[in-house]
Amino acid sequence: MSDELSGTLTADGHRLSQRVYYEDTDFSGVVYHARYLHFLERGRTDYLRCLGIQQGGAGLGGEEGLAFVVRHMELDFQAPARMDDVVEISTTSYRVGGAKLVLDQTIESGGLLLIQARVTIAVVNGRGRPRRLPDDVSARFASGSPS
Amino acid sequence: MSDELSGTLTADGHRLSQRVYYEDTDFSGVVYHARYLHFLERGRTDYLRCLGIQQGGAGLGGEEGLAFVVRHMELDFQAPARMDDVVEISTTSYRVGGAKLVLDQTIESGGLLLIQARVTIAVVNGRGRPRRLPDDVSARFASGSPS
Amino acid sequence: MSDELSGTLTADGHRLSQRVYYEDTDFSGVVYHARYLHFLERGRTDYLRCLGIQQGGAGLGGEEGLAFVVRHMELDFQAPARMDDVVEISTTSYRVGGAKLVLDQTIESGGLLLIQARVTIAVVNGRGRPRRLPDDVSARFASGSPS
Amino acid sequence: MSDELSGTLTADGHRLSQRVYYEDTDFSGVVYHARYLHFLERGRTDYLRCLGIQQGGAGLGGEEGLAFVVRHMELDFQAPARMDDVVEISTTSYRVGGAKLVLDQTIESGGLLLIQARVTIAVVNGRGRPRRLPDDVSARFASGSPS
Repeated sequence: MSDELSGTLTADGHRLSQRVYYEDTDFSGVVYHARYLHFLERGRTDYLRCLGIQQGGAGLGGEEGLAFVVRHMELDFQAPARMDDVVEISTTSYRVGGAKLVLDQTIESGGLLLIQARVTIAVVNGRGRPRRLPDDVSARFASGSPS
Repeated sequence: MSDELSGTLTADGHRLSQRVYYEDTDFSGVVYHARYLHFLERGRTDYLRCLGIQQGGAGLGGEEGLAFVVRHMELDFQAPARMDDVVEISTTSYRVGGAKLVLDQTIESGGLLLIQARVTIAVVNGRGRPRRLPDDVSARFASGSPS
Repeated sequence: MSDELSGTLTADGHRLSQRVYYEDTDFSGVVYHARYLHFLERGRTDYLRCLGIQQGGAGLGGEEGLAFVVRHMELDFQAPARMDDVVEISTTSYRVGGAKLVLDQTIESGGLLLIQARVTIAVVNGRGRPRRLPDDVSARFASGSPS
Repeated sequence: MSDELSGTLTADGHRLSQRVYYEDTDFSGVVYHARYLHFLERGRTDYLRCLGIQQGGAGLGGEEGLAFVVRHMELDFQAPARMDDVVEISTTSYRVGGAKLVLDQTIESGGLLLIQARVTIAVVNGRGRPRRLPDDVSARFASGSPS
């Protein structure tokens, strides 16, 4: 059950299915544009979860701490999702290294591309200062597995 | 996949598992109180979906139309959910009849009761006026199946 | 400007005006039911702010700390708000004392009552344990002023 | 009151003040990244409102209808906002013409730049098909006034 909820690792990243509910729509009849960022963030969080990287957890990255902060987003809104749709959120690593992750993400529904996004994420320590991604963590992105 | 996403019918109603993400929390460190209403609404929507009652769909309830509007809620907040938690939303019919549904809902996590809610829902037609729940629809609540 | 943003103390409580935006609506064409809880919470936060009680601030309530947690809500949804509406959120103290606040709140638009709510709030210390409301804080609710 | 709520037209666009509430934050302690898009959208909506262009209203753009849809966003997240902050949303027209608006937006707090955004918006008719912006509407962006 929990596995299903967290999506699955793929050859080049991660895929997650999510339902569109009332809360996601607005009076124009389709999904409110900012809600796609929620779906994208769920995809990133579950990608990290499947790689064994818990954002909410303590102890990650040793004493220094390790957290991820969105620094830049480029978003193409190509087609809208609607109430009751099941959307597929795909996440792949475009570049992983140093103090930065660049992820490419898409949201699709029924084979149709809805949203395309490139997300730049800063790697920070427990006090919010830039830090290098630990080697064992960046290795998980390269291997596409939690170890 | 789609079945998993919609939860499952139970002996006396419906159960749905959902993940707590960043979006659901606030700076106090736990889930923002209004977000529990989103989880409850997802539970109700998927309960109706599993009973074959699509809220977004046209044609339901014949020419007159059929929709559901929340009229009253009583909510007990007993314990908070946190980032990464998986919560279980349970929905049962307390009373179904006339132009009204009364549903009892709970949100639990790891066997702990977090939220208890009684939700009164008005049955309305396509123009938002009260109407009786069609017999074939109320029969689905009674039988706990879509037919 | 900041004063305008925080609403105003009234003879028996507090009043705040807020605009309904896209984000507040859903595909049914009116405001999503859970969003009214956001408006109510903005009203409570600004009521406390006008009484000189900052929830986000440190130092409140001495070393022990002081925070407020919603424990129970009873909500009547009487009429919907729509995109572009300006709503008035009114908050009054029904009962203040011990380790509990009970607040009565309404949301109105153009003189029409939309939502009526009774909200029970637990007073807790910095570790989330029940504590008595300090006398100087409960006196502010009684006097309706920050001192 | 209503004027205050809608912000003010400036020499080159529009400015709106908004408060950060509980709902805007997440467990990391600062504002959830997707919430900045809500603030930006409130700024755009009130810019149009101050120019006399009501998105929710009927009759705009003649029989053909007129609506605005976000097509592309580029977002720089430079510093976070926190609970209780008052943020200033500034919107200026970078390019207005044909079937497209390009708006530059910033969110600042206490003189510090938090967010920088370029937003491309498609002009569509009542059926969601591209249409030219009517001359009298584009003239309002040029003059910075509702007539």
